[in-house]
Amino acid sequence: MHIPLERDKTVPLARQIQEHLERLITEGRLVPGVKLPATRELAQALGVNRATVALAYEDLCAAGLVRAHVGQGTFVADREPGPEATADRPSGRAEPHPPRTGHPRTERATRSPLQQNRASGAPAFSNRPPADQGEHATPAPIDWPALFSRSSRAVAADEERARALGAGLRVPEGAVSFAGGMPDSGLFPTDAFRRVLNDVIREEGESLLQYYPAGGYPPLRRYLAAYLLRFGIEARPEEILIVNGSQQGFDLIARTLVDPGDAVAIEQPTYPRAMQVFRAAGATLLTVDWDEAGPRVDAFERLLERHGPKLLYCQPSAHNPTGLTLRPETGRRLLAAAARHQVPVVEDGFDGSLDYGARPARPLKALDAHGLVVYIGTFSKVLFPGLRLGWLVAAPALIERLQGAKQLADLHTSALIQAAAHRFCERRLLDRHAARIRAEYGRRRTLLLDALRRRMPEGVTWTEPAGGFSLLVTLPAGLDAAALLPRALARGVAYTPGAAFFVDGAGERTLRLSFSSVAPGRIGEGVRRLAETIRAERREPGRRPAAARAAVPVV
Amino acid sequence: MHIPLERDKTVPLARQIQEHLERLITEGRLVPGVKLPATRELAQALGVNRATVALAYEDLCAAGLVRAHVGQGTFVADREPGPEATADRPSGRAEPHPPRTGHPRTERATRSPLQQNRASGAPAFSNRPPADQGEHATPAPIDWPALFSRSSRAVAADEERARALGAGLRVPEGAVSFAGGMPDSGLFPTDAFRRVLNDVIREEGESLLQYYPAGGYPPLRRYLAAYLLRFGIEARPEEILIVNGSQQGFDLIARTLVDPGDAVAIEQPTYPRAMQVFRAAGATLLTVDWDEAGPRVDAFERLLERHGPKLLYCQPSAHNPTGLTLRPETGRRLLAAAARHQVPVVEDGFDGSLDYGARPARPLKALDAHGLVVYIGTFSKVLFPGLRLGWLVAAPALIERLQGAKQLADLHTSALIQAAAHRFCERRLLDRHAARIRAEYGRRRTLLLDALRRRMPEGVTWTEPAGGFSLLVTLPAGLDAAALLPRALARGVAYTPGAAFFVDGAGERTLRLSFSSVAPGRIGEGVRRLAETIRAERREPGRRPAAARAAVPVV
Repeated sequence: MHIPLERDKTVPLARQIQEHLERLITEGRLVPGVKLPATRELAQALGVNRATVALAYEDLCAAGLVRAHVGQGTFVADREPGPEATADRPSGRAEPHPPRTGHPRTERATRSPLQQNRASGAPAFSNRPPADQGEHATPAPIDWPALFSRSSRAVAADEERARALGAGLRVPEGAVSFAGGMPDSGLFPTDAFRRVLNDVIREEGESLLQYYPAGGYPPLRRYLAAYLLRFGIEARPEEILIVNGSQQGFDLIARTLVDPGDAVAIEQPTYPRAMQVFRAAGATLLTVDWDEAGPRVDAFERLLERHGPKLLYCQPSAHNPTGLTLRPETGRRLLAAAARHQVPVVEDGFDGSLDYGARPARPLKALDAHGLVVYIGTFSKVLFPGLRLGWLVAAPALIERLQGAKQLADLHTSALIQAAAHRFCERRLLDRHAARIRAEYGRRRTLLLDALRRRMPEGVTWTEPAGGFSLLVTLPAGLDAAALLPRALARGVAYTPGAAFFVDGAGERTLRLSFSSVAPGRIGEGVRRLAETIRAERREPGRRPAAARAAVPVV
Repeated sequence: MHIPLERDKTVPLARQIQEHLERLITEGRLVPGVKLPATRELAQALGVNRATVALAYEDLCAAGLVRAHVGQGTFVADREPGPEATADRPSGRAEPHPPRTGHPRTERATRSPLQQNRASGAPAFSNRPPADQGEHATPAPIDWPALFSRSSRAVAADEERARALGAGLRVPEGAVSFAGGMPDSGLFPTDAFRRVLNDVIREEGESLLQYYPAGGYPPLRRYLAAYLLRFGIEARPEEILIVNGSQQGFDLIARTLVDPGDAVAIEQPTYPRAMQVFRAAGATLLTVDWDEAGPRVDAFERLLERHGPKLLYCQPSAHNPTGLTLRPETGRRLLAAAARHQVPVVEDGFDGSLDYGARPARPLKALDAHGLVVYIGTFSKVLFPGLRLGWLVAAPALIERLQGAKQLADLHTSALIQAAAHRFCERRLLDRHAARIRAEYGRRRTLLLDALRRRMPEGVTWTEPAGGFSLLVTLPAGLDAAALLPRALARGVAYTPGAAFFVDGAGERTLRLSFSSVAPGRIGEGVRRLAETIRAERREPGRRPAAARAAVPVV
């Protein structure tokens, strides 16, 4: 620890040390539980007597700022709790609504320590070096928003839109949450993964913890080449690039193919973070609506002719939010149209192992006669989201440039994680796990569909998912799912307003229900609460307050 | 495995299966060592008799394409080795010269299997679905280069430049390599890390393997806040964003602050991948030359007045490639100039624990009275590069936007890796490891400086590193370090041509020597070989062939 001391001052050294530490503690820079350096160590580092440091610590202790534990050391004390958390998160800490992600269970929407300080009148941030105080008495604070790039402002606008749709609303204790489109961590094969991690570190730790080539861990690329054949995708290991989950896949594709001002064709509804990535890249989004057969090919063709989009983004199987899979004939026609116009198709794939049908749907990439499909795969759904591990499959010329973008983005994906995932797969543990969760998620899907059929009032409709984690409900005319959310939460049920999945501010009547991480015994009760909420809303529509989102421009 | 069968054809089913698998093998889609499905499984999946599959496998075995191991199964056989590897890597697989990174030892500059296939006349990539062959007999291949974004083309041009400077040249067996600016994996505390990984998975595995908030693992952010105080940096945990190594740090900063067409001020020489990131973001780079005190403040001020740069990028301590640290007075003057113009300073920090002086240099961020420094830290130098773990420290308004960019880039950094690194630090294993490697790298630094003093011919000069992994040598006038590299390799010594660290194609006479991962016993010999190479070159300058890099425009 560095504490600047002024030895020719009249202020005693112990006092200077105490004041410095006190400031760090009250400003939140030394947080509760942090251990202070031993008096001997700090005395040596500062070139002062040990008694001087001990004196400073005693003063801090007397002021209740630190606690001394005999034999253990001196620790920053817990402070008084701040004011009660508000329902809305402080905007600085808010996370945009992550329909496919959600937060781990441990997170709570509490006020951040930073905000607490401000609310309690503590001094605002001032990172002045004590020795220079005189020189820079009143530094002009930098105007950060004036410096943000267009891309950054686009991301901020998207976050604002997500908040207006209810991101940041608190899910009350005891509620049934259909909101998080993520696998159930209660089903994770955590211990089996721990064992393979041990094995690969023991055997290859040194090379796995060093810098690694950007393309990925070669045995994993080889495994994936063989794995993808199950679903009809033929790719050489060199045509597979390892990335940090499908999110990085979108991002690398946008960086490699999209310039500001380009048009991008995108299915609607669609995955919100894909929209965000292309918007942040400066693209104009042009929508191709889904019908029961998949994205409408006639609309796509018109769009190809009139607007020359740079690419088409879609989720042909286990589509999020609807859970639908396009018909093979639609896929073939989409590809033929794209080929005529030399437009790449970005396929955000959902692992065929989690398909609820008798046979997994064939990905578009398996029908790709022209090499124009860029396939995005991920371990997030079928194994662990927290691995941040996915892959891209594309033609060699494109993979080369995607790899260049990957290298620039973060050099490479952790080889340790790659090797552990590979070992897990190679031992057929993934196959076993996938079979298990497919059965369990299939069961939850059936329970949800049954409950919807039994409970939902007339006029409410929903999709029948062929795969994936969710389905899309459409409310009767006149209802708005985002406006309804606070009342649903009050009745103990959560969902994701469907407008989040639409580009143009449509989809107000829709909402997404994810069944993957709801305990089977809670599904019926959740649907009952939702049905009640809808019924009550139809009885008393006049009581609806002005929807917060109406105030926010949809971008 | 999906194999399309045509049951009404005259071709027997076994033959169809055999031909399909043969094509997958010869086209490299099923690679040597891959296990074919068991005959029972495949027969069931395809709805054919098991004997049919067995017959197909026998034919493949007879053709030498697969091997059957009793009791184990059938595996794709090793093929004949391809033609001998060339010195230059095939461009499709080449990695741009990574002066801070380098490749793990296992990598060799061999021709890729893809290239081997092409060289041997095997059919080029054609991902046709067999059932559709008739319909799409000759699909027009997509013209990928025509679709690449400006950003992607900028990255490609940088890769080209790196190749022209010798990236991809093969380091011969037995050579002493001063080329890789990375920690020595022989010193890695691999087993201690394995143990903490085990502990955190056992205790928190479920939440660490689920999606996680983008900001990072809270205990790690708290630890870092306390850790940075050692070096005089005061930051609240909320002002710290966890990222995938410093490379992702550069990238997020560029995305958040730089629009295409902006000017960016950058020290010279500097870290090549930082240049690449800002170039890929569409920025014009304006250089501020280093002298012995740091980046020249007068040059920076002129640049501020004339060109209004969006930010300044620099490495104030343990600067790569020189190893120099700027003087505190220079730091203060740089910051004052930046503050007057409201221009952020991006500080690419080098961990103070590896400073070779009596006391670690104070980072610029520790002098930052105006909150305008964005600090980038990383575990890559002080622990493992392969963790891909780093952090950004910035003012709250900026951290919020950097976090938005992070979320878009890849949602979050693996919480498992973050928790393991935190546990490693909390147990003081990092402190112990840092002390150990600091002593070892310090020793190698001294050995290198001694050897240079003893061996180098007159006219050769070099920097004295205060920290870091490397120093910069300047050759006498008339010599070109990139042109000299093939001859140095022939004498068994490797280095990085210094031109890679210069924006404007300058620095031809310089070369970087990294000492961090050279065994102490080899340093003297390496310098002897380098000195010999320089002497020979000065004796016979006429023999120098035209430098390859002269043919390549420096972008």
